Amino acid sequence: MNRAPIGIFDSGIGGLTVARAIYERLPHESTIYFGDTARVPYGPKSPDTVRRYSLEILHWLLDQGVKAVVIACNTSTAHALEALQAAAPVPVIGVIEPGARAAVSAMRGGPIGVIGTAGTIASNAYARAIQSAKPGAAVEQRACPLFVPLVEEGWFDHPAAELIAAEYLEPMKRARVDVMVLGCTHYPLLKPLLQRTLGPDIRLIDSGEETAASVQGALRSSGLDAPPGATPEHRFVVSDDEARFRQVGSRFIGERLGKAEVVALG
Amino acid sequence: MNRAPIGIFDSGIGGLTVARAIYERLPHESTIYFGDTARVPYGPKSPDTVRRYSLEILHWLLDQGVKAVVIACNTSTAHALEALQAAAPVPVIGVIEPGARAAVSAMRGGPIGVIGTAGTIASNAYARAIQSAKPGAAVEQRACPLFVPLVEEGWFDHPAAELIAAEYLEPMKRARVDVMVLGCTHYPLLKPLLQRTLGPDIRLIDSGEETAASVQGALRSSGLDAPPGATPEHRFVVSDDEARFRQVGSRFIGERLGKAEVVALG
Repeated sequence: MNRAPIGIFDSGIGGLTVARAIYERLPHESTIYFGDTARVPYGPKSPDTVRRYSLEILHWLLDQGVKAVVIACNTSTAHALEALQAAAPVPVIGVIEPGARAAVSAMRGGPIGVIGTAGTIASNAYARAIQSAKPGAAVEQRACPLFVPLVEEGWFDHPAAELIAAEYLEPMKRARVDVMVLGCTHYPLLKPLLQRTLGPDIRLIDSGEETAASVQGALRSSGLDAPPGATPEHRFVVSDDEARFRQVGSRFIGERLGKAEVVALG
Repeated sequence: MNRAPIGIFDSGIGGLTVARAIYERLPHESTIYFGDTARVPYGPKSPDTVRRYSLEILHWLLDQGVKAVVIACNTSTAHALEALQAAAPVPVIGVIEPGARAAVSAMRGGPIGVIGTAGTIASNAYARAIQSAKPGAAVEQRACPLFVPLVEEGWFDHPAAELIAAEYLEPMKRARVDVMVLGCTHYPLLKPLLQRTLGPDIRLIDSGEETAASVQGALRSSGLDAPPGATPEHRFVVSDDEARFRQVGSRFIGERLGKAEVVALG
């Protein structure tokens, strides 16, 4: 039993969907969420830069006494997971492998679809993780750069969102995918729109939910879970622009998001 | 007469529309363009952070021997113009005041519209500049966060772009603006769409073109212009991800954009 918090970090706001999945699955665990809003987005940055930023955040979280670290950011997982696992004395869990494994379990013969930011898709990280879980699996990938700003605008049901989703997902329908991974932490807020666009037979994989399940497994297997009756505390820390984080973030996790502290890194 | 280059900088790619306007108006001037692609976007960052980054770029450009500096970034102009003018031994020209003045000259009784990123609109910098040029002028502002990713996708004529523009510009039509400032360096690529949406009677002000005219005036008045027959050289420097800069940037200035150097700052 261990009451120390779980550290969760992202380049910005999107990782809050992963935090939310962790709150739901592990209601007694305390967390510290770090959003690197001063340096968001990580997608267009080079792998070396992303690795350097991620290590800075890891060390800051370790200084806060976290018992595990969740990389709630696809870009950082793609470029920095191994470096962080090598550097950390606690379990480090990324968002890609849990989503990839869940997709492989759910596939029914068609290719696996993966959507994400331009950076995540270009990194090919999901395709690699899927093929390492199931060699030879066919993967249909598509970058969807307009989805993040649509989510941040809150235009989940806007007619423009329908047209954009129709255009981005057309190759998925044509390829007859039967499972599609939401490879960006913003996308769970678009689930109803994506399901409407793809039709009810295509299973959507929320990497955040799968990651929360992996975190649960990692804590259990190392005896690190919080006591069953523990009252959780949730801290939010950003590297810049707390006001915007709070405003957009409340769309992600509602009232749970109180005030955030500001800590400059780097 | 002075053959030294003009320094132009932006948080990323958008400032290339300002560079293009400078190439067109001042065909004998050499330039160095710095795009801070490692730290883009500046919009969500705090004024202090934006000022610190802008000063770093200013000093780098001065080390390259530039004879004038153009802040081709609305956020940086809003937060750092005065600091840079105080720090630099050469003229420093921002994008906001030239656009604001041109809008005031073109107004015909209705309010002046201003569109930009969330950061630029929240800074209120255009409204202040317009009201300092014409006290009491009415200003109708609107943040349009989806326009930048639409431009970067190249969806200038996509039906979704039409719907998004219709939604964003509806308050402009209702307020009966007769002049509208494009307060973001990405927006000149949307001019045909914006004009179609607003109708032919509304005059669009391209801050980049107005800024190029201001640069011309500043060089002339200080005797800094290049000799009439000079062959210009254009350097492009970014702080990260040269490949994406070249790919998206060619949409902004075409073949003129060759290879870019990478220089890390900060």
